[in-house]
Amino acid sequence: MFAGQADDLGPSDQIRHYLRELARLNVESRPETAALMDAAMRHGDPLRGPALETDLTKTVEHGQQIGELERHVDAAVAGRLLAAGYFATVLRWVHDDPAPFDLAEQLDDMASLVLHGLVIAPAAARSREG
Amino acid sequence: MFAGQADDLGPSDQIRHYLRELARLNVESRPETAALMDAAMRHGDPLRGPALETDLTKTVEHGQQIGELERHVDAAVAGRLLAAGYFATVLRWVHDDPAPFDLAEQLDDMASLVLHGLVIAPAAARSREG
Repeated sequence: MFAGQADDLGPSDQIRHYLRELARLNVESRPETAALMDAAMRHGDPLRGPALETDLTKTVEHGQQIGELERHVDAAVAGRLLAAGYFATVLRWVHDDPAPFDLAEQLDDMASLVLHGLVIAPAAARSREG
Repeated sequence: MFAGQADDLGPSDQIRHYLRELARLNVESRPETAALMDAAMRHGDPLRGPALETDLTKTVEHGQQIGELERHVDAAVAGRLLAAGYFATVLRWVHDDPAPFDLAEQLDDMASLVLHGLVIAPAAARSREG
């Protein structure tokens, strides 16, 4: 969806960029986002909606092909997790008024978690971003 | 919920154990799982339901306290992501008949992803599980 703007970015930054653009749209149109999320929940769509998940899965596959992302990870699992994390975060964000947190920031934290993981890496690997 | 059985496990294995027990219940009662998921989606609950998210957040906090999980990660973001990943996976699994994948296996893949991340770690860190 935003791939055109992000072609020069690596896969990690593409994922962050994608989520940041979605957050910008959500923040700019919070009432519409709330209505959309309510409708999506009533129709049972948000976690089955393929567009976001498909885009994110393709970004992960590309990152695997160019050797920047782990090849042993199932790209579909990663795409589904990122899309589910996005929807869960937006749902929480629209549910409370005023917004309980900065949406773009929480989505970026979520992306960092999926990119770098929870487990403390061996000391030699601590050069990765904190 | 299953913490009693998992007290002797490290936080990573506690998370896996927790998801595996949920998968076992879902697989043993697939029709009931489908009905529950449908009802939850209609009521807009699944991503707001606090029980699973709260349990997973506490497990992450404990792992941070004992120095096994990254302290800079927001435990609430991690708990929400794991719970959202669980619900998204179960939704996909109940939606297709026959089940499109092994539920416990996909949940374990999802847990591995959140625990270890997508980005390829420096070579020195490759001692972590592949």
